Amino acid sequence: MDIGFIGAGAMGVPMIRRLLAAGHKVRVYNRTPHRLHTLVEEGAVSVDSPAAAATSPVTVSMLADDDAVNATVLDAGVLDAMPRGAVHVCMATISVSLAAQMRDAHARHRRGFVSAPVFGRPAAAAAGKLFILAAGTAADLQVAAPVFEAVGQKTFELGADPVAANVVKLCGNLSVAVMNETWGELFALAGAHGVAAQQLVDVLTGSIYPAPIYRLYGDLIAQEAYSPPAFPLRLGLKDAKLALGAADSAHVALPLASLVRDQYLKAVARGWSNLDWAALGQVSREDAVGES
Amino acid sequence: MDIGFIGAGAMGVPMIRRLLAAGHKVRVYNRTPHRLHTLVEEGAVSVDSPAAAATSPVTVSMLADDDAVNATVLDAGVLDAMPRGAVHVCMATISVSLAAQMRDAHARHRRGFVSAPVFGRPAAAAAGKLFILAAGTAADLQVAAPVFEAVGQKTFELGADPVAANVVKLCGNLSVAVMNETWGELFALAGAHGVAAQQLVDVLTGSIYPAPIYRLYGDLIAQEAYSPPAFPLRLGLKDAKLALGAADSAHVALPLASLVRDQYLKAVARGWSNLDWAALGQVSREDAVGES
Amino acid sequence: MDIGFIGAGAMGVPMIRRLLAAGHKVRVYNRTPHRLHTLVEEGAVSVDSPAAAATSPVTVSMLADDDAVNATVLDAGVLDAMPRGAVHVCMATISVSLAAQMRDAHARHRRGFVSAPVFGRPAAAAAGKLFILAAGTAADLQVAAPVFEAVGQKTFELGADPVAANVVKLCGNLSVAVMNETWGELFALAGAHGVAAQQLVDVLTGSIYPAPIYRLYGDLIAQEAYSPPAFPLRLGLKDAKLALGAADSAHVALPLASLVRDQYLKAVARGWSNLDWAALGQVSREDAVGES
Amino acid sequence: MDIGFIGAGAMGVPMIRRLLAAGHKVRVYNRTPHRLHTLVEEGAVSVDSPAAAATSPVTVSMLADDDAVNATVLDAGVLDAMPRGAVHVCMATISVSLAAQMRDAHARHRRGFVSAPVFGRPAAAAAGKLFILAAGTAADLQVAAPVFEAVGQKTFELGADPVAANVVKLCGNLSVAVMNETWGELFALAGAHGVAAQQLVDVLTGSIYPAPIYRLYGDLIAQEAYSPPAFPLRLGLKDAKLALGAADSAHVALPLASLVRDQYLKAVARGWSNLDWAALGQVSREDAVGES
Repeated sequence: MDIGFIGAGAMGVPMIRRLLAAGHKVRVYNRTPHRLHTLVEEGAVSVDSPAAAATSPVTVSMLADDDAVNATVLDAGVLDAMPRGAVHVCMATISVSLAAQMRDAHARHRRGFVSAPVFGRPAAAAAGKLFILAAGTAADLQVAAPVFEAVGQKTFELGADPVAANVVKLCGNLSVAVMNETWGELFALAGAHGVAAQQLVDVLTGSIYPAPIYRLYGDLIAQEAYSPPAFPLRLGLKDAKLALGAADSAHVALPLASLVRDQYLKAVARGWSNLDWAALGQVSREDAVGES
Repeated sequence: MDIGFIGAGAMGVPMIRRLLAAGHKVRVYNRTPHRLHTLVEEGAVSVDSPAAAATSPVTVSMLADDDAVNATVLDAGVLDAMPRGAVHVCMATISVSLAAQMRDAHARHRRGFVSAPVFGRPAAAAAGKLFILAAGTAADLQVAAPVFEAVGQKTFELGADPVAANVVKLCGNLSVAVMNETWGELFALAGAHGVAAQQLVDVLTGSIYPAPIYRLYGDLIAQEAYSPPAFPLRLGLKDAKLALGAADSAHVALPLASLVRDQYLKAVARGWSNLDWAALGQVSREDAVGES
Repeated sequence: MDIGFIGAGAMGVPMIRRLLAAGHKVRVYNRTPHRLHTLVEEGAVSVDSPAAAATSPVTVSMLADDDAVNATVLDAGVLDAMPRGAVHVCMATISVSLAAQMRDAHARHRRGFVSAPVFGRPAAAAAGKLFILAAGTAADLQVAAPVFEAVGQKTFELGADPVAANVVKLCGNLSVAVMNETWGELFALAGAHGVAAQQLVDVLTGSIYPAPIYRLYGDLIAQEAYSPPAFPLRLGLKDAKLALGAADSAHVALPLASLVRDQYLKAVARGWSNLDWAALGQVSREDAVGES
Repeated sequence: MDIGFIGAGAMGVPMIRRLLAAGHKVRVYNRTPHRLHTLVEEGAVSVDSPAAAATSPVTVSMLADDDAVNATVLDAGVLDAMPRGAVHVCMATISVSLAAQMRDAHARHRRGFVSAPVFGRPAAAAAGKLFILAAGTAADLQVAAPVFEAVGQKTFELGADPVAANVVKLCGNLSVAVMNETWGELFALAGAHGVAAQQLVDVLTGSIYPAPIYRLYGDLIAQEAYSPPAFPLRLGLKDAKLALGAADSAHVALPLASLVRDQYLKAVARGWSNLDWAALGQVSREDAVGES
């Protein structure tokens, strides 16, 4: 299938490779084109504008945040460039309000729109092991299916309103941030009573939390192994703010999200923006021993 | 093996049955003796004082809280009644400070002491599927091993200081309370944007949280199914306070535990003491829609 | 002096009256012109655009929020309409970022700009008892002085950067919200032990807090007298968000502001948007007795 | 009048001096008797047991905490030593539960009991400027009146149940802790935008908070002047825990108190136990700039 792809970042590159490996023809746009050299050697076609990437029946975008989506999609003529009936699959973690705006803009332009953020870090993308949260009309989801098959291990179809996928994604990321804060506090408590952090991880993941994500972040925080980041803390803060923003618009108080946001801000003040977002758990650990 | 057992409550009864089924001879004391009728028919021997239960090489106690351990063990002559070299296996969720006091009292009396709280609800006890957190000397742990084999699926040995087991238990229960608060807040956020609670449970437990405990409590909170309780909310509050107490004695701030405690108190004020502790998640759900 | 005035709302009207009473000639613009009838009878001149109000040496704006300032000042040609050397005195509670933007826009247009938010409710404005937080160049402040003399009891000059005045205003409003939450929690605690809310107000304002604002809000919350609002709760929420926004841009965690914001959201979910912002204190009061 | 006085600490000494200066005859007990040398030179009579101090018609106790009251009053035979009809005036900040226990013990012994904690630091005691929160029967309050006249500027009579005075005292101290945390957060926010802490104190105390206590603690925190302490931070933490304990027993959630307690714990972990309790506000200040 002909696929356009906008955004060849840490997540986009392994996803494009999976699409190429599955036999698709991929036209790629990236703001900084030198990132595309290797992909071109592997068979991708490099184009020099988002609109030029959007002429296929399916265009995937995998961008960093709301600003990037606004600049590279909405303000870059992508909707006009897409053929009638083509489908845009937006896989970024963006705000609920921008997702709603995108949904409405595509509807006005009579273009298909699927919102499909993912759970998984770059290594999962490279292995085709992403979990995909997809929402859109049944017809649009069907068009997008080959993309999901190439990069994901499982696709959750969340109904016809694309926004639902973004809501679920924000819920997931918030829950991981809470889990990381939980690890940090538990390590502080356990450590104060002579129980090693790693021992606590081994017990809890070996008993009530037999989930790889508990093990992954438990190990990182226990070992204070925050660099290099697979997902930088500043993006974790961004996502916590997206969750709070979505809650605010519906007058929903999220005390855990407020707490997590405050811990993120303290982490940023300590200079940890570009550490792995697992470093959220470090704030409470250090508060417990009085240093930072 | 001859085993004494103090405390035939919701957890104790299925554990005693497992011990009987494994061929052990069990002498049981319970404050309200009528609970013992069925157990006696199944082969247990009923005794009328904690001391009378403590004459075996191993005495297990499974009591509700610090007050019960003080009244039924320390103040009831259990240590004096135990034979030299006998081991007391204390499986209750008690405070770190009482665990330390128990450890020291047994040492002064030259009795063995193993702290061995568990993860798992009564159904898990009945199925021999408890996770056992055990700490004590290697010799004492060896004496206790047949008990653990009968009731547990896995035993984590946490070193020679019994207190470590209690610390890990409090960490585990605190993390579950945070998980339940997380579910409640996520359901509030998702619900406000049209995503059903059950759908969120299905996606998150089907992707990043493939742990039965996430599914169990996610389902309970999604369905608002809090009665009858497998573990009443007032005991969840007790455990949150035990975690805060253990943290306080070491000057450790636990913001999540403080938040959870406050939510528990609001739940109690709403009359939910005897609902399942999953009802913690209901507070934020109701706050989001303005009713209680 | 000739004075332009943009925004004849709950605060603007009494301020305009004070200016008229002091002998100034006031040209007034308001989005809903019927509010101006009485003022015109009292001597004000009604104009039909913000630009038409801005032709005097001093233009005062007293608008509700960032959106209103954007629409009625920046996007309405006010800066172009102002004479060279004229000074715009912006007395609204707006965001730090919009204040910075306004400061820069006036500098580019070579217009004077004074940021001068106030402490005080409409009754204080009518009595000329506002506290004025003013920042701008010394020359601009001097031009604005007659306005401040007419409406305020005291002017605090906060330096040459207008933004400082907005920062101080947000600090003040946040502190009042915290005070109101404090009252609510104290009443919950005291009430649970048989001490009446009003008695607590009488003691604390008669001893350590001899400040009228403590008495004012203490009485309102003790008596649950939230209607009609002198300052509606939804605007209190807006201000808490402005404080959090200003903090966020500087990576500053404000745990009290986060807590207050969450309480405001619960209040809004309970339908209290248009009650007095003192109703913030009602959330904890009701949580303590389990009803909402 | 003959007055017994138990506890010659930082508060007790200036109070005893005031009583002597008013012409009373004072018998004093203190655990460390060398503190009494100067007082004896000034006319006090030193006695060597609490019971020996309790033989007057009025016995005042001014002790540090619950443990001291238990050891020096309840377990030291004070109630038996008091003459029939004599009144014990307990001026310490103690728990609501101990106050209730004291009330009941005095009733059983047919001794009078007035609970009378105070607002004010040692300097206020020396100047006779304490605010006194007094509760007890009218007859007992009348007996205690000369004591209050000597040390206080104003007495608030809070009804017949002594516990009410302790509740109000805990409310007051909690509100001051919240005020200090507020100052700390406001300084963090203001400082990040170029507004000096001292300037903020000057504006807020010169406008909406014309209360000496706002000025006192605002100045201390603005200047980071935490040593020597007039009231050490560890006692502030103790009082926050007393408030939380009183709330807990009535199932009342106090989110501000939980937040304040957590900040205190972080302060203690940083080694600030013996700084002035104003140092509570330093935690958020340092979190904002990433150092501790």
